[in-house]
Amino acid sequence: MAGSSPIVAGTRFVLKHQFSGFPKKEDFDFVEDPMPALKDGEILMDALFMSVDPYMRPYVMRLSPPFTMIGTGVYKVRESRDPDFPQGGIVVANVGWVKTAIVNSREIQKDAGGLRLIPNQMLTGISPSKLLGALGMPGNTAYFGFLELCKPKEGETVVVNGAAGAVGSLVGQIAKIKGCKVIGFAGTDEKCDWLTKELGFDKAYNYKTTSVDEALKDGAPNGVDCFFDNVGGVDATIVINNHMNTFGRISGCGAISVYNDKEPKMIPSIQGSIVFKQLRYEGFIVSRWLERWMEGIMQMAQWMREGKIKTEETVVEGFENMPEAFKGLFTGANKGKMVVKA
Amino acid sequence: MAGSSPIVAGTRFVLKHQFSGFPKKEDFDFVEDPMPALKDGEILMDALFMSVDPYMRPYVMRLSPPFTMIGTGVYKVRESRDPDFPQGGIVVANVGWVKTAIVNSREIQKDAGGLRLIPNQMLTGISPSKLLGALGMPGNTAYFGFLELCKPKEGETVVVNGAAGAVGSLVGQIAKIKGCKVIGFAGTDEKCDWLTKELGFDKAYNYKTTSVDEALKDGAPNGVDCFFDNVGGVDATIVINNHMNTFGRISGCGAISVYNDKEPKMIPSIQGSIVFKQLRYEGFIVSRWLERWMEGIMQMAQWMREGKIKTEETVVEGFENMPEAFKGLFTGANKGKMVVKA
Repeated sequence: MAGSSPIVAGTRFVLKHQFSGFPKKEDFDFVEDPMPALKDGEILMDALFMSVDPYMRPYVMRLSPPFTMIGTGVYKVRESRDPDFPQGGIVVANVGWVKTAIVNSREIQKDAGGLRLIPNQMLTGISPSKLLGALGMPGNTAYFGFLELCKPKEGETVVVNGAAGAVGSLVGQIAKIKGCKVIGFAGTDEKCDWLTKELGFDKAYNYKTTSVDEALKDGAPNGVDCFFDNVGGVDATIVINNHMNTFGRISGCGAISVYNDKEPKMIPSIQGSIVFKQLRYEGFIVSRWLERWMEGIMQMAQWMREGKIKTEETVVEGFENMPEAFKGLFTGANKGKMVVKA
Repeated sequence: MAGSSPIVAGTRFVLKHQFSGFPKKEDFDFVEDPMPALKDGEILMDALFMSVDPYMRPYVMRLSPPFTMIGTGVYKVRESRDPDFPQGGIVVANVGWVKTAIVNSREIQKDAGGLRLIPNQMLTGISPSKLLGALGMPGNTAYFGFLELCKPKEGETVVVNGAAGAVGSLVGQIAKIKGCKVIGFAGTDEKCDWLTKELGFDKAYNYKTTSVDEALKDGAPNGVDCFFDNVGGVDATIVINNHMNTFGRISGCGAISVYNDKEPKMIPSIQGSIVFKQLRYEGFIVSRWLERWMEGIMQMAQWMREGKIKTEETVVEGFENMPEAFKGLFTGANKGKMVVKA
């Protein structure tokens, strides 16, 4: 049982204790609750796809284990006693790492995006897994986090790291739609090839074999105007200190390079650059734009239909492999969005 | 002679080579040009007060010595062949460390604040030296840099470091006018007493004897909403990582603690905090608001007349002591604005 959680019963992963360093399978218990009959306001649903995302690692540090591991999935309603979520409907549910679940839909903050019935027409020709990627949280993270905070102008130079990830790969493509020059950093040559040859990035560099400084001397001789930072760490300071132009904008989306550190990493100060180059560095969590959620998703869907946004997924088979898929985010195992087929 | 500079001739300090560590007297040559007769468009003027400001240290690093040291002074026009700057007029001139000077007023970017005739009524009952402080660059730095970037709301908690300096002491007082709780950091107990007893700061801590962390646990138990950073360095990261509230705003005005470093200082990463607390961290140079210059000055003058803003000066006597006065900025020799009486 999951206490005051909206989950009445389910097959689920429980986080036993806080992560220490990289996530491990041993950090989780696999729990199979007995499944009672549905009551009024409850629905029984089966996961089709589950999401694993980098934000989960730092986010859980605010919570006290044990608890059902946080996260989002796409589900099909098997049985319903809530007319808002009819049998056969496809829903995106932010109820954690739960495969088959009975949830009390009235206890879920629907207005906070906790449970969302997806209109059928939205899924025409599109895999429901995209609701966890370009048409879900990562899509809106790229859409709002880049456009609202970087405010890119046509002709400007944009740098994105973690560029082959779920969010980074979308940011670069949105920047191209907006007429920018786009430079990406990723962790393998194969990912870099994908960025330039498939997604239209102007340049892509393997940060494991090319220094950020050398890469940007080559790729951004006129400096960087917008920096969408998924990674943090020392490399981010090199972009900022050595390459940003005056009045440059930095969108702080993530800091995946430091999520597994126990103390704040020591990195070069960017304070002088912030002042003298008059930079604006702003961090965000995408829920800030919850009221505009469908605006972002609809625009992303339109760009996908027009062929302007391409998406790729790394699919791990089997709900039982969620811990392994999650760990893979921090070792660069994914190209595009990492999802688990339940 | 000063090449294509607007200075035709003068008694002046020339920076011989780049600073290395703290500024020293030996970094300068004292030059006395022969003074020719005035030509059309030229004025001869005598310094009343000269400014030394922390920004000068990093700013000169963009320039190639030797050159007349950069800076601003208040002058009285002794002789004029430009009707815009009549004999006896008081002007603020951004022409460098020059005592008696012949300048070609047409070669000075007047619209960029290079040479500004001060209306007599502005100086009624006010020392002309204030034109280098609360009614000049530091005043507008506090006014625009705090209000425009921190966007303080009534009841919020504001932290300012370098709080006993020319800018910091004004920021705290403006924050009080706006109904905020104000916490200052300064480098002596006597300065802290001045901040709380004379200027109305709610709390002031001597950062040399109290850790920033302990101070803010005491003074800001509900967290910090606005941080006006004059100092940078490790202490600034402690404010940000340990005490800023969600959606907090940081105005990056200066980084005096790192100006004399040769390499970027290694400090704890703030990247995770920027993201998860959704902070906005923006640096600025006050010239960004040049078009609104008089708006800031007029407001500051009004607050001074109303007794809402108090100003203090540390006055060093003698133009020849400018290098020493400048160095004193980095050792905390000043309370309020540091000026040199020429």
